[in-house]
Amino acid sequence: HFLKALDEVRPAFGVEESQLRNYIRNGIIRFGDGFSKVEDTCTKLLHQVKNSEATPLLSVLLEGQSGSGLTALAAYLGMISDFPYAKMITPEDLVGYSESAKCSKITKIFDDAYKSPLSLIVLDNIERLLEYVRIGPRFSNQVLQTLLVLVKRIPPNKRSRIMIIGTTSSGALLDDLSLREAFQVCVKAPLVHGPADITKVFRELNCNIAEKDLDMIANSVDFPIGIKKLLMVIEMSSQTPNRLITFDEFMRCLTDYGL
Amino acid sequence: HFLKALDEVRPAFGVEESQLRNYIRNGIIRFGDGFSKVEDTCTKLLHQVKNSEATPLLSVLLEGQSGSGLTALAAYLGMISDFPYAKMITPEDLVGYSESAKCSKITKIFDDAYKSPLSLIVLDNIERLLEYVRIGPRFSNQVLQTLLVLVKRIPPNKRSRIMIIGTTSSGALLDDLSLREAFQVCVKAPLVHGPADITKVFRELNCNIAEKDLDMIANSVDFPIGIKKLLMVIEMSSQTPNRLITFDEFMRCLTDYGL
Amino acid sequence: HFLKALDEVRPAFGVEESQLRNYIRNGIIRFGDGFSKVEDTCTKLLHQVKNSEATPLLSVLLEGQSGSGLTALAAYLGMISDFPYAKMITPEDLVGYSESAKCSKITKIFDDAYKSPLSLIVLDNIERLLEYVRIGPRFSNQVLQTLLVLVKRIPPNKRSRIMIIGTTSSGALLDDLSLREAFQVCVKAPLVHGPADITKVFRELNCNIAEKDLDMIANSVDFPIGIKKLLMVIEMSSQTPNRLITFDEFMRCLTDYGL
Amino acid sequence: HFLKALDEVRPAFGVEESQLRNYIRNGIIRFGDGFSKVEDTCTKLLHQVKNSEATPLLSVLLEGQSGSGLTALAAYLGMISDFPYAKMITPEDLVGYSESAKCSKITKIFDDAYKSPLSLIVLDNIERLLEYVRIGPRFSNQVLQTLLVLVKRIPPNKRSRIMIIGTTSSGALLDDLSLREAFQVCVKAPLVHGPADITKVFRELNCNIAEKDLDMIANSVDFPIGIKKLLMVIEMSSQTPNRLITFDEFMRCLTDYGL
Amino acid sequence: HFLKALDEVRPAFGVEESQLRNYIRNGIIRFGDGFSKVEDTCTKLLHQVKNSEATPLLSVLLEGQSGSGLTALAAYLGMISDFPYAKMITPEDLVGYSESAKCSKITKIFDDAYKSPLSLIVLDNIERLLEYVRIGPRFSNQVLQTLLVLVKRIPPNKRSRIMIIGTTSSGALLDDLSLREAFQVCVKAPLVHGPADITKVFRELNCNIAEKDLDMIANSVDFPIGIKKLLMVIEMSSQTPNRLITFDEFMRCLTDYGL
Amino acid sequence: HFLKALDEVRPAFGVEESQLRNYIRNGIIRFGDGFSKVEDTCTKLLHQVKNSEATPLLSVLLEGQSGSGLTALAAYLGMISDFPYAKMITPEDLVGYSESAKCSKITKIFDDAYKSPLSLIVLDNIERLLEYVRIGPRFSNQVLQTLLVLVKRIPPNKRSRIMIIGTTSSGALLDDLSLREAFQVCVKAPLVHGPADITKVFRELNCNIAEKDLDMIANSVDFPIGIKKLLMVIEMSSQTPNRLITFDEFMRCLTDYGL
Ligand SMILES: Nc1ncnc2c1ncn2[C@@H]1O[C@H](COP(=O)(O)OP(=O)(O)OP(=O)(O)O)[C@@H](O)[C@H]1O
Ligand SMILES: Nc1ncnc2c1ncn2[C@@H]1O[C@H](COP(=O)(O)OP(=O)(O)OP(=O)(O)O)[C@@H](O)[C@H]1O
Ligand SMILES: Nc1ncnc2c1ncn2[C@@H]1O[C@H](COP(=O)(O)OP(=O)(O)OP(=O)(O)O)[C@@H](O)[C@H]1O
Ligand SMILES: Nc1ncnc2c1ncn2[C@@H]1O[C@H](COP(=O)(O)OP(=O)(O)OP(=O)(O)O)[C@@H](O)[C@H]1O
Ligand SMILES: Nc1ncnc2c1ncn2[C@@H]1O[C@H](COP(=O)(O)OP(=O)(O)OP(=O)(O)O)[C@@H](O)[C@H]1O
Ligand SMILES: Nc1ncnc2c1ncn2[C@@H]1O[C@H](COP(=O)(O)OP(=O)(O)OP(=O)(O)O)[C@@H](O)[C@H]1O
Ligand SMILES: [Mg+2]
Ligand SMILES: [Mg+2]
Ligand SMILES: [Mg+2]
Ligand SMILES: [Mg+2]
Ligand SMILES: [Mg+2]
Ligand SMILES: [Mg+2]
Repeated sequence: HFLKALDEVRPAFGVEESQLRNYIRNGIIRFGDGFSKVEDTCTKLLHQVKNSEATPLLSVLLEGQSGSGLTALAAYLGMISDFPYAKMITPEDLVGYSESAKCSKITKIFDDAYKSPLSLIVLDNIERLLEYVRIGPRFSNQVLQTLLVLVKRIPPNKRSRIMIIGTTSSGALLDDLSLREAFQVCVKAPLVHGPADITKVFRELNCNIAEKDLDMIANSVDFPIGIKKLLMVIEMSSQTPNRLITFDEFMRCLTDYGL
Repeated sequence: HFLKALDEVRPAFGVEESQLRNYIRNGIIRFGDGFSKVEDTCTKLLHQVKNSEATPLLSVLLEGQSGSGLTALAAYLGMISDFPYAKMITPEDLVGYSESAKCSKITKIFDDAYKSPLSLIVLDNIERLLEYVRIGPRFSNQVLQTLLVLVKRIPPNKRSRIMIIGTTSSGALLDDLSLREAFQVCVKAPLVHGPADITKVFRELNCNIAEKDLDMIANSVDFPIGIKKLLMVIEMSSQTPNRLITFDEFMRCLTDYGL
Repeated sequence: HFLKALDEVRPAFGVEESQLRNYIRNGIIRFGDGFSKVEDTCTKLLHQVKNSEATPLLSVLLEGQSGSGLTALAAYLGMISDFPYAKMITPEDLVGYSESAKCSKITKIFDDAYKSPLSLIVLDNIERLLEYVRIGPRFSNQVLQTLLVLVKRIPPNKRSRIMIIGTTSSGALLDDLSLREAFQVCVKAPLVHGPADITKVFRELNCNIAEKDLDMIANSVDFPIGIKKLLMVIEMSSQTPNRLITFDEFMRCLTDYGL
Repeated sequence: HFLKALDEVRPAFGVEESQLRNYIRNGIIRFGDGFSKVEDTCTKLLHQVKNSEATPLLSVLLEGQSGSGLTALAAYLGMISDFPYAKMITPEDLVGYSESAKCSKITKIFDDAYKSPLSLIVLDNIERLLEYVRIGPRFSNQVLQTLLVLVKRIPPNKRSRIMIIGTTSSGALLDDLSLREAFQVCVKAPLVHGPADITKVFRELNCNIAEKDLDMIANSVDFPIGIKKLLMVIEMSSQTPNRLITFDEFMRCLTDYGL
Repeated sequence: HFLKALDEVRPAFGVEESQLRNYIRNGIIRFGDGFSKVEDTCTKLLHQVKNSEATPLLSVLLEGQSGSGLTALAAYLGMISDFPYAKMITPEDLVGYSESAKCSKITKIFDDAYKSPLSLIVLDNIERLLEYVRIGPRFSNQVLQTLLVLVKRIPPNKRSRIMIIGTTSSGALLDDLSLREAFQVCVKAPLVHGPADITKVFRELNCNIAEKDLDMIANSVDFPIGIKKLLMVIEMSSQTPNRLITFDEFMRCLTDYGL
Repeated sequence: HFLKALDEVRPAFGVEESQLRNYIRNGIIRFGDGFSKVEDTCTKLLHQVKNSEATPLLSVLLEGQSGSGLTALAAYLGMISDFPYAKMITPEDLVGYSESAKCSKITKIFDDAYKSPLSLIVLDNIERLLEYVRIGPRFSNQVLQTLLVLVKRIPPNKRSRIMIIGTTSSGALLDDLSLREAFQVCVKAPLVHGPADITKVFRELNCNIAEKDLDMIANSVDFPIGIKKLLMVIEMSSQTPNRLITFDEFMRCLTDYGL
C-alpha cells in the first residue's frame, strides 16, 4: 500500500519531515517501470553522496511536464534520503519577497546545509523561483546568478557533503539560462503510461469502479498522463453517490479538465 | 423574476455579501441555454469543493469578451456558493497601489481565506490586475508571479478548502503568461445570442416596447452580444417619454454605441 | 453673438465655473452643421446621465485633430452641463508631478466626484496625461492603468452618477492602449469646413474685412481647418492698421503658420 | 558696425541683459539677405506679442545646422525684444541636474515669466535639454513632457503674454517627438552663403587681408557655412604675424576644421 | 605523485595559501603535453613579472571549456608564484552582493595588491562575476567597467608589480564585451586527450582497475574531456565493492553524466 | 634622448606635473614623421589658445587604435603646454563611482579650470568614461550629456581660456553619440610604421641587440603597430641573459602577444 511506504521512511536525525510530507498530499504510488527506474537512479545517487568522500557535491535536475508529480517526487527523495538536513525551497515559501530577499533566503538555507555533514536541498519549480515569464522574456537575474553559483558550490566546510535536487517543467528555459549545465545529472520524471500503469493507480486508490469500466478507461487513456492530473480527474469523477466511478463520467471529466 | 433570484441566495456565515452584490447592479438575467450550461458547470464545481476532502483547491478561469457580464457572473457565483468566506479582488480596489502593495493586498486575502474551512476568491479582470498593456507589452511581473503561485497553492492548513475564480477578456494573453495552465478548469462566459435570448432579456426587464418592435429587434441583432452592452443600449434607447423603446431608436443607439 | 452664449450657461450649484471658462478664451463659435451635430449628441448624453438612474456612468471620447478646439469644447460641455460638480484634468495642472503623484491627483478628483450626486470630469489631452511619446513608444503605464480603471468605474456610492469626457488627438494610440474601448461612446470633433463655416467665423468675430476679400478667403481655404488654428491665422493677419484683414495677408499668414 | 548694433538695444525694464549678451560673444553680423529675412520675420512676431491682446502665447522654433549661430540669434532677439522679462534656458545651466531637477528649474522660469506682463523665454538647444542621444534612442521623457506642455501653455494670468523661442539642430528629432507641432511658427536659421555674404563678414571683422586673397576666399567657399564655424576658421587663420590672413592659410584651416 | 607537488610549493611571504589550496580539492595531475605547455607559458610570465621592472602589469586570460580545471589551474599558479600577495576573486565569494558591492569588493582587493611589491590576482569565472546570462543578454555593466579598468591599470605605486589571471569558459562573450582585448596574453586551458593522457590520470589516482579495462577505457574515450568531468565519472564508477572500476560501469557513468 | 625631453618641460605655474608624468611611464619616443606631424599640429593649437583672446575654447579629439600611446601623448601635451592648470580625467580615477558621482567629479574639474586664466583638460579614453559596452549597446547617458555640454562650453569667466583634449579608440562610437562633432579639431594618433620608425624605437631604448637582428625585425614588422604594444613585446623578448634580444625571440613574443 502506497501510504505505508511513506510511514516507513522516517528520517533519523530530526530533518523537517513534516515539511516534506506536506508536498506528498496523496502519497507516492509506484505506478510502473518508468517510476521504478527513476527511483533507482536517484537512490544510487543518494547512496554515492552518503558514502563517497570524494563527492562533496551532487546535483540532479528532475525534469518533466507540469503535473507529473515533480514536487512530490523530490520531497519523497528527501524523506527516504535519511540525511540529517533536508529542506525544500519552493516558490510558495518565497511569494511576495523581493528578488534580493529571495536570494538571501536561499543562500541562508545553503549556509545552514553546509553546517551539516550530510544535507539535501530541493529547489522546487525553478522557473517559478526565477519569476520567469515567456513574454520578454523576464526573470530575476539575481536569483538566477545565485542558483548558478550555489548549485556548483562545493561546501566550504571540508566535512560536509550536499545533494541538490532541482525540479523544472521548462527544461528548454534552463538550457537557455545555462542552468542545466550547472547540474551534474539530469533525470526525466516518469509519466503514467499504458493500461498497466493506469490500472495500478486505480487499484492503489481502492477506487469504487466496475472492472469493465476500469478496463475501458485503461485502454482509452492511450497517452502519457501526469500523476497529478490523473488523480484530479479520478477525484472529479468520484463526485457521485458512493463515489462510484463510471467510464463515461471519467471521460467527461478528463475532457473538461482540458486534456 | 431575476431580482428575486439574488434575494434568495443569502450566504449563511457572514460573507461580505454586500460587497459581492455591488457587482451585480442590474441583477442576473438567465437569458438562455448558454447561460444555463455555464451556471450548471460552475455549480457542480462549487459542490465538489464543498464536499470532496480530496479537493483542497479548485481553480476556474471564466473567459469571455469584455462586457459579457464576467464580473457580475463571478460575483453571483460567490453569492450562491454559500461559503463562509467569499471575496472579490478587483482592479478598482487596487487602483493607485504600487506593484508590491498590490501583491501584499492579494496575498493577505488568500491568507485570510486559508483560515476559513471553505472559501472562494474572485480574481476579477486579471489583465487589469496585471496592469497589462499590449504595447511593449508591459505588465507587472511581480503581480503575475504572485498569481501564478497563489492560484496553484494548496491551502497550508489541512482543514481548509478553496475555490478560485478568475475572469479575463484576454485569454490569449493568459496563455502567453502561462497563467491559463495554472487554472484547472476553463469556462467560456455566455453571450446573448439569437431572438429567444434577446426577447428573454427585454421581458425580464419589463421594457415598454411594442411586440412588433421587439420582434424586429430580436431578429435584427443577429450577432452574439454581451449582456452588459445590451443592457446599456436598452437604457439609452429608453430615454424617451414613458421610456417607450422603438425599433429605430434602439438600432440608432446600437450603432452609436460603436457596435 | 458667441460670447453671450457662454454668459447664459452659468451653472447653478457652485461648480468651478471660472476654471472651465479659462479654457474657452475665445468663446465658442457655432460655425456650422458639424458643430451642431456634435453639440446635439453630447447634450443628449448629458441629459441621460442627469435623468436615468440606470446610467450611473457615461463615458465619452472626443477625438479630433490637434487644434480642432477639443479642450474648449469639453470645457463648454462642462459649463452647460449644469452639474453640481464639474472638473477639468489637464496636462498643465499635472506638469512636473511624478507618475504616482499624477495618479493620486487624478484618483482624488474622481473620489471627490463620487461624493456629488451628479458630476462631470474632463480628461483633457489624454496622450499628454499619459506622457506619451511615439519613440519607443513610451508612456506612463501607471497613469494608463489608473485611467483604464477609473473610466469604467461605476461610482461606489449608489446615489452618484458621473459623466466622463476624454479628449485626444491620437485616436490610434488609444486603440493600441485598449483605452478607446474603455469609453462607451466616441464622438469626432468638428472642423471648420467650407465657405459657409469660414464666413460664419469671420462674421462672429466682427472682423474688419472687405466682402470681396472674405469671399476669396472662404473659397480658397478648401480644406477642413481646426478652429484654433483658424483663429490664430485671423489674429496674425490682423496685425495691420485698423486691424484690416486682406486676402493676401491672410493667405501669407496661413502659409507661415505651417499649413 | 555690428558691435554698435548691440549697444543700442538696451532693454528698458531690467531684463537680464548681461546674461543674454554672454551668448553673443562675437556680436551679430548682418551678413546678407538670409539673415535680414529671418530678422524681419522674428521682429514681426515680437511685435504681435507686444501689441495683440488676443495673442497671449507665441512660440517659434529656430531650426538650423549646428554652428549656424542659433544660440546667439535667439539671445539677440531676446535683447532687441525690449520685454521686461527675458531669459535663456541653456543646457549649460542645467548640466549635472537630474531629470526632475531640470524640469522644476524650467517650470520655475516659466512661472516667473507668467508674473510679467510681457516675457520671452529661449529654450536653447532643445535636443541637449532633452539629453537626446541617437543610440537607443534615449532622451528624458520627463523633460520632453514638460516642454510639450509649457510650449503650448497659455499664461494662466490673463494679463500676461509670452513669446517662446526654441532652437534646435535636430529638426527631424523634434518631428519624431511631436515637439515641432507644439510650436506655432517655424523659422530656418540663415547660413553664410555666397561671395557677398563672406566678404561682408570679413569686412565687418576688419580683418587684415589682401583684397585678392579675400576675393579668392569668397569665391572658393562655394557652400553654405555656419557663421560660428566661419568665425572660428578666420580666427585660426589669423594666428600669424600681424594677424594677416592669406588665402592658403585660410583654406588649410578650413580643411583642418573638418569641413 | 601529484599531491606532493602541491606540498612543495609553499609560498614564502604569508600569502593566503589555504584559500588557494581549497580550489584544488583533487590535486593537480600533470596529464600530458597539453598541460605541460600551458604550465610552461604561465611560469615564464610569472617569471617576467617577478624580474622585469619594466613590466609593472601582466594580464593573462585562461580560456577553456567548463570543467577543464580552470579554477584549479589558476589557483595552482597562484600557489607556485611564490608572490607575497596572491588572491582568488570567485563568484562564490560574491554571491548575494549587489552590483556595486561586488565592485567595491573587487576594487578593494586590487588596492590591497598595489600595496605589495609583487602580487597575483585571479578573476575566476569572469562570466559569472559579470552575472552574465545569454538571454537578453544581461550582465552587470558596472562590474564589467570595473574589470575593464582594473585589468589594464598599472599599479599607481611605482614599486608594485601585479599579475592578473582571468578564467572564462565564454571566450566569445569576452570578445563581445571588449574584455579579451584588455588582457595582454591569452592561454587555452588543456583538455585530457588521447590514451596516454587518460592512462596517466588513472595511474596518478591509484585506481583499482584491471589493465585490460583501463586499456579499453583509454581507447574508447576518443574525444577531449575536461579533467573535472573525468574525475567525476571515475568517482561515480568507483561506487562498487573495493572501489573496483570496470569498463562497463565507467562507460555507463560517462553516459549518465550527460556526455 | 627621449627622457631628457620630458625633463625639460617643467610647467611654470604649479600644474600637477607628477600626475601627468605618471601616464608617460616609458617616456616619449619621437619615432618618426607620423609622430612629428601630430606633435606639430597640437603645438600650434596649444599656441592659439595661449595667444588668441578670440579663442576662449579649443577642443581636440585624439583618435587612434588602442595601444597607440593615446594616454601618454595627451599627458605629454599637458606637460609641454606650460598652462597654469592641466588635469587628466581618466577612467581609473573614476572607477567605482556612480554615474552621477562621475558627472560631478568631471564638472568640478571643469569648474576649477574656469578659475584659471589658461587651462588644459584631458578626457582620457572617452568610451571608458562613458562606461560603453558594445552589447546593447549600453553607456552612461548622464556622463555623455555632461561631456557633450562641457566640451562645447565657453568658460563663463571672460578672462579664462581652455583647451580640451579627448582621447578615444572608438571613433565610430563617438560619431554615433554625436560626440565627435562636439570637438572642433580631430587628430589621428600616430603608429610606429616602417623600418625607420622601428629602428628608431630600438635605438632610443638602448636595446641590447645585434645589428643584423634589428634589421630583420625592422623589415619583418611590415604593419603599423602601436607604441605601447611594441614596447611590451620588446620587454618580453628581453627576458634573457643580459637582456639580449634576438630576432627569433622577438617574433615569438610578437605572436604570443596576439598580433
Ligand atoms: N509516484 C508519484 N509521484 C509523484 N506524485 C505522486 C505519485 N503518486 C502519487 N502522487 C501524488 O500526486 C501529486 C503530485 O503533485 P505534485 O504537486 O507533486 O505535482 P507537480 O508535478 O509538482 O505539479 P506542478 O507542475 O503543478 O508543480 C501529489 O499529491 C502526490 O502525493
Ligand atoms: N446573466 C447575466 N450575467 C452577467 N451579468 C448580468 C446578467 N444579467 C444581467 N446582468 C447585468 O449585466 C451587467 C454585467 O456587467 P459586468 O460588469 O459584469 O460586465 P463585464 O463583462 O465584467 O464587463 P467589463 O468587460 O467591462 O468588465 C451587470 O450590471 C449585471 O447586473
Ligand atoms: N466651436 C468652437 N469649438 C472649440 N473652440 C472654439 C470654438 N469656437 C471658438 N473656439 C475657441 O478656439 C480655441 C480652441 O482652442 P483649444 O485649446 O480648445 O484647441 P485644442 O483642440 O484643445 O488644441 P490643442 O490640440 O492644442 O490642445 C479656444 O480659444 C476657443 O475659445
Ligand atoms: N548673424 C549672426 N548670427 C549669429 N551669430 C553671429 C552672427 N554674427 C556673428 N555671430 C557670432 O557667431 C557665434 C555664433 O555662435 P553660437 O553659439 O550662437 O552658434 P550655435 O549655432 O548656437 O552653435 P552650436 O550648434 O554649437 O550650439 C557667436 O559668437 C556670435 O557672436
Ligand atoms: N591538471 C589539472 N588541472 C586542473 N585541475 C586538476 C588537474 N588535475 C586534477 N585536477 C582537479 O580537477 C578539478 C578541477 O575542477 P575545477 O573546479 O578547477 O574545474 P573548472 O574548469 O573550474 O570547472 P567549472 O567550469 O565548473 O568552474 C579540481 O578538483 C582539481 O583538483
Ligand atoms: N611617442 C610616444 N607616444 C606615446 N607613448 C609613447 C611614446 N613613446 C613611448 N611611449 C610610451 O608608450 C606607452 C604608451 O602607453 P599608453 O597607456 O599611453 O597607450 P594607450 O594608447 O593609452 O593604450 P590603451 O589603449 O591601453 O589605453 C607609455 O608607457 C609611453 O611612455
Ligand atoms: Mg510542483
Ligand atoms: Mg468586469
Ligand atoms: Mg487641447
Ligand atoms: Mg548653440
Ligand atoms: Mg571553475
Ligand atoms: Mg590609454
